[in-house]
Amino acid sequence: MINVGIVGGTGYTGVELLRLLAAHPEVDLQVITSRSEAGRAVAQLFPNLRGHVALKFSEPEINRLCDCDLVFFATPNGTAMQMVPQLLALGVRVIDLAADFRLSDAKQWQQWYGMPHACPELLNEAVYGLPEVNRAAIRDARLVANPGCYPTATQLGFLPLIESGLVDVSRLIADVKSGVSGAGRGAKVGSLLCEASESMSAYSVAGHRHLPEICQGLEQAAGQAVGLTFVPHLTPMVRGIHATLYAELSDPDAQLQALYEQRYADEPFVDVMPAQSHPQTRSVKGANTCRIALHRPQQGSTVVILSVIDNLVKGAAGQAVQNMNIMHGYDERLGLAQIALLP
Amino acid sequence: MINVGIVGGTGYTGVELLRLLAAHPEVDLQVITSRSEAGRAVAQLFPNLRGHVALKFSEPEINRLCDCDLVFFATPNGTAMQMVPQLLALGVRVIDLAADFRLSDAKQWQQWYGMPHACPELLNEAVYGLPEVNRAAIRDARLVANPGCYPTATQLGFLPLIESGLVDVSRLIADVKSGVSGAGRGAKVGSLLCEASESMSAYSVAGHRHLPEICQGLEQAAGQAVGLTFVPHLTPMVRGIHATLYAELSDPDAQLQALYEQRYADEPFVDVMPAQSHPQTRSVKGANTCRIALHRPQQGSTVVILSVIDNLVKGAAGQAVQNMNIMHGYDERLGLAQIALLP
Amino acid sequence: MINVGIVGGTGYTGVELLRLLAAHPEVDLQVITSRSEAGRAVAQLFPNLRGHVALKFSEPEINRLCDCDLVFFATPNGTAMQMVPQLLALGVRVIDLAADFRLSDAKQWQQWYGMPHACPELLNEAVYGLPEVNRAAIRDARLVANPGCYPTATQLGFLPLIESGLVDVSRLIADVKSGVSGAGRGAKVGSLLCEASESMSAYSVAGHRHLPEICQGLEQAAGQAVGLTFVPHLTPMVRGIHATLYAELSDPDAQLQALYEQRYADEPFVDVMPAQSHPQTRSVKGANTCRIALHRPQQGSTVVILSVIDNLVKGAAGQAVQNMNIMHGYDERLGLAQIALLP
Amino acid sequence: MINVGIVGGTGYTGVELLRLLAAHPEVDLQVITSRSEAGRAVAQLFPNLRGHVALKFSEPEINRLCDCDLVFFATPNGTAMQMVPQLLALGVRVIDLAADFRLSDAKQWQQWYGMPHACPELLNEAVYGLPEVNRAAIRDARLVANPGCYPTATQLGFLPLIESGLVDVSRLIADVKSGVSGAGRGAKVGSLLCEASESMSAYSVAGHRHLPEICQGLEQAAGQAVGLTFVPHLTPMVRGIHATLYAELSDPDAQLQALYEQRYADEPFVDVMPAQSHPQTRSVKGANTCRIALHRPQQGSTVVILSVIDNLVKGAAGQAVQNMNIMHGYDERLGLAQIALLP
Repeated sequence: MINVGIVGGTGYTGVELLRLLAAHPEVDLQVITSRSEAGRAVAQLFPNLRGHVALKFSEPEINRLCDCDLVFFATPNGTAMQMVPQLLALGVRVIDLAADFRLSDAKQWQQWYGMPHACPELLNEAVYGLPEVNRAAIRDARLVANPGCYPTATQLGFLPLIESGLVDVSRLIADVKSGVSGAGRGAKVGSLLCEASESMSAYSVAGHRHLPEICQGLEQAAGQAVGLTFVPHLTPMVRGIHATLYAELSDPDAQLQALYEQRYADEPFVDVMPAQSHPQTRSVKGANTCRIALHRPQQGSTVVILSVIDNLVKGAAGQAVQNMNIMHGYDERLGLAQIALLP
Repeated sequence: MINVGIVGGTGYTGVELLRLLAAHPEVDLQVITSRSEAGRAVAQLFPNLRGHVALKFSEPEINRLCDCDLVFFATPNGTAMQMVPQLLALGVRVIDLAADFRLSDAKQWQQWYGMPHACPELLNEAVYGLPEVNRAAIRDARLVANPGCYPTATQLGFLPLIESGLVDVSRLIADVKSGVSGAGRGAKVGSLLCEASESMSAYSVAGHRHLPEICQGLEQAAGQAVGLTFVPHLTPMVRGIHATLYAELSDPDAQLQALYEQRYADEPFVDVMPAQSHPQTRSVKGANTCRIALHRPQQGSTVVILSVIDNLVKGAAGQAVQNMNIMHGYDERLGLAQIALLP
Repeated sequence: MINVGIVGGTGYTGVELLRLLAAHPEVDLQVITSRSEAGRAVAQLFPNLRGHVALKFSEPEINRLCDCDLVFFATPNGTAMQMVPQLLALGVRVIDLAADFRLSDAKQWQQWYGMPHACPELLNEAVYGLPEVNRAAIRDARLVANPGCYPTATQLGFLPLIESGLVDVSRLIADVKSGVSGAGRGAKVGSLLCEASESMSAYSVAGHRHLPEICQGLEQAAGQAVGLTFVPHLTPMVRGIHATLYAELSDPDAQLQALYEQRYADEPFVDVMPAQSHPQTRSVKGANTCRIALHRPQQGSTVVILSVIDNLVKGAAGQAVQNMNIMHGYDERLGLAQIALLP
Repeated sequence: MINVGIVGGTGYTGVELLRLLAAHPEVDLQVITSRSEAGRAVAQLFPNLRGHVALKFSEPEINRLCDCDLVFFATPNGTAMQMVPQLLALGVRVIDLAADFRLSDAKQWQQWYGMPHACPELLNEAVYGLPEVNRAAIRDARLVANPGCYPTATQLGFLPLIESGLVDVSRLIADVKSGVSGAGRGAKVGSLLCEASESMSAYSVAGHRHLPEICQGLEQAAGQAVGLTFVPHLTPMVRGIHATLYAELSDPDAQLQALYEQRYADEPFVDVMPAQSHPQTRSVKGANTCRIALHRPQQGSTVVILSVIDNLVKGAAGQAVQNMNIMHGYDERLGLAQIALLP
């Protein structure tokens, strides 16, 4: 049993963390902070939690958080880095669901996030929390940078191909579609039902913050620079990411299906579907699963990988709980057995 | 641990039963039948169940079902009544999620369902499976008629008022809104996304099959005939029922909030919200909860009750599992602790 | 040909006015103002207008508006009343799509809108712009108060019953469902796709600002006080209002269908459907039509009226253009022949 | 003024044709056929047409159609080819909105559509009705094959690049997202609201019928074979296609924005947006417009073209009316001035 805190629990990753942690048998949820909602019952803000979470939001104070074994940050980018050094010094382990510790290069971080990094010395220590790549390092980490939603779906889709050297890494394409919850719970005109429903559009084609994060992961797998065109799209649904990935095979005889099945054989949360399947995002709604299917249209040299996750679960809160389980020696699947809600 | 079977598992109540039973610690799911899908893996039809349900659909044969302690029918109306007498004779207990055993009057049943009843002699034995009314009888029942979705939301909303004799029961109004999953998984034009989304309409105003079921329950509570106007509406969402109920108070000094809180104080799945709350259907999405809130606009004589459920959970599969728990002496909440998925 | 201006064109009633006026053969759109967007091309904010509207937003200055024959206010409540007296004095006619001039009682207005009225002396002059009631007065009006969306659907549904004295006006019920565009284009958490989609809820049951507006209209028709319970609901769709109206018949032999058909026989924008129809809101999406259907379930004394409109058209911009046509002697249907978009 | 007939008007392209033709000033709609709905009023099936279309469906008989100047086929694939030779022989011009005459190679047609072509001799005469390519030929055509929805968005997006020889045509990628109305009004489980909403998935990755149609058009423009990977996706919305197109530039100094603006300068229904725009499908909902925007992420060699249409308008019925206007010498824009409905 561990004592757990959440900093910044008023967004969608926050409420999703609460849903998962409230039902986790080894978690004692001690504190959840929010400057704006301090004093208010969590279940008043999120009525789905009535009867499940009795906590109130409190001010984000170190002396409340320092009794925790683990603190999750579900805050906007740039917040965690202000508090993390102090918490680590007090012996508290941290999983940051924002982007503060995802890039190992402080300059690059500043370039994409528009502010100097507050503790660049921690960037190398932080472990990128993609268990399918860094499981061992996560186990011992003090500080885990939980991956972004697009990067999770895209990397899990591309990794076996790239690790095996079977494709031309200089021209990868990721055409990725996200539900609107990826934009957060902030009151923005573009996220209104009347703006985002019954419509489809790309955005940030010139450059999205998840691009360097994805490239960093793919380059580590490739052992060389990669060229990636990444086009995110806003899709009229609440949850879900569908990554449609394109790459050119260098070996026309590659056995892709077997490659993927072997790569993920022992992964509890990656499901390689039968060849030529078409995974639906709803098949993982509320679940910590990434479903992947492979295609080679007309037996040509272009391989098409379909990779779906729930952006709030495997793309955020679920993966964070998975990392927590690894860090604390629990069964990696503990508290993550939810079956997707269908329909 | 009990052996459980499902007859007719290809609809939405079927897949929802599977979601709940697959995670239930005291259930060993033995058989699930479907004439049309016999031989096909359940998880192929419902990919959310990949990794959770290994069963295949089989033909609906008595000799497969007779080893079960309990069989759920998730079949169209008129199917269960063909097989139930034989199963009961073999000592198998039954919960029917369809309407075959909900009305105690065989003539009335025939009138509303358009066919003669196949085993009218069982109508009196069958227990109407609304635990908040019939818990004791359910415990000992061989045959439970699981309530309809509209009747569950409407009865739970009206019952305290009617049991207490505080309202004029000759003029009750239930304006009820249902998500499209209430229409089932059948391929009907009216249930297409392009027909049912971005629109709202009433239907069956002249008379809906759930009307006699609701009246039967309310009359039992009132000890007299009731007059109910029931108007169902098709709402552009997947899950959820929102019942807006209207009644005229005969006692202007009635303490309604206290009345409801006391009536449901020990009910694990009825949540009486603070006065003047506005429950959202999404606050119960995937959960077995009924949330109720009370209003008396402008302190007048008209009381407005808001009652929400997930039609597939408390309105179908969840309530069926609740009944199963009662029948078999398990904690009524076992396997039903899911927190609603929000957003 | 008339010169027309719009004050406050950045909301949904604004863009809908622009859609209708840009295609109106007798309108020369001269100016559209917005403090926040001044200098920006209208078609940049609303890309559906690219190629149709070349105007830019400008500052709301009287000296730009005073050359107009008619000015529409599509502003938040409380704005029009600051500018209208000056415009009227300059000979400009005004249609206010907000609530500033809808209530004839300044005290009541202050009570519901939370501020003193800036020009109470105009409340009696202002004509309530429901053409089906006030056509003659609209023709000569300097100032038209365009009705609210809920009041339009509710009054058109109830009026024939009430005018004819056939129902008990002391206990009317209006259970009304609105699409999210009724909440406007403001960035509010409750209007986010992730909050408002896949859910249904009532709101403002204790008292909504449209209640006194509806009562005022119904009382004028009844010649006496009315008792109305009005419960608005937020429905997961963009456009549309579905009013489900309940009343008790005092004459059981009333010929309701004929009554409605006669009452609206000459109305170009009210469509009385065959008895027992179920109008869908999508059947009026983008059109200036109100569709009405009548029911008497089980031939009882409760009459159920279903009334649907597009809240942005007959409930706002379309009705405003209809009023404009009446005021300026054009065919009332000019520029309003759009057929609803289905699917 | 021309006499017009529609064969097969019960689907979504049918009702959309009716919406456009009912308001077209030069069209006298004479007959609309449907075997299944013969005798029923069109406005009963499609209540948005109440008050606009007085016709009833009739049996599809040649002697009713032969008085028309033009007949539209809005039938399933394989139907038009049974009747078209006879109509042409009688002097009736034809626009087929299905696929019967889109491919010039009868063998290829049989391969993709699973039946032999009934009149292969007409395949060369039929003009592919993409006005932006074949305007002159359309003018004189007896038989126009109206393009598919995916092919319209994809070809208009790719054409300027390919005609100018600026990209490597051996590796083109079209990642295309379609609203559910593209699947038609047939009662299929996959098109149910409860299946298709709140989810995203690719389909037919192995090969979709629109692939050869697109390739045929692009190869004609390129003057050589092209290699295209085409991945269609089912998107949870009613209308709209968003094509995200990827190509490799052979000339890094190409002036793409100017190229597109010039190519489409005189096209009334293609709107080249400012560079780096992100067109939303809703910006063309109900309108006959194709909106295109160009991107070169990180100034690399991969060009990304975004192209959106309403699949039922520019992708079907609107383009058919545009072709009709061209064939009959009307202003190409006649009856097609509708502004997209937003929100």
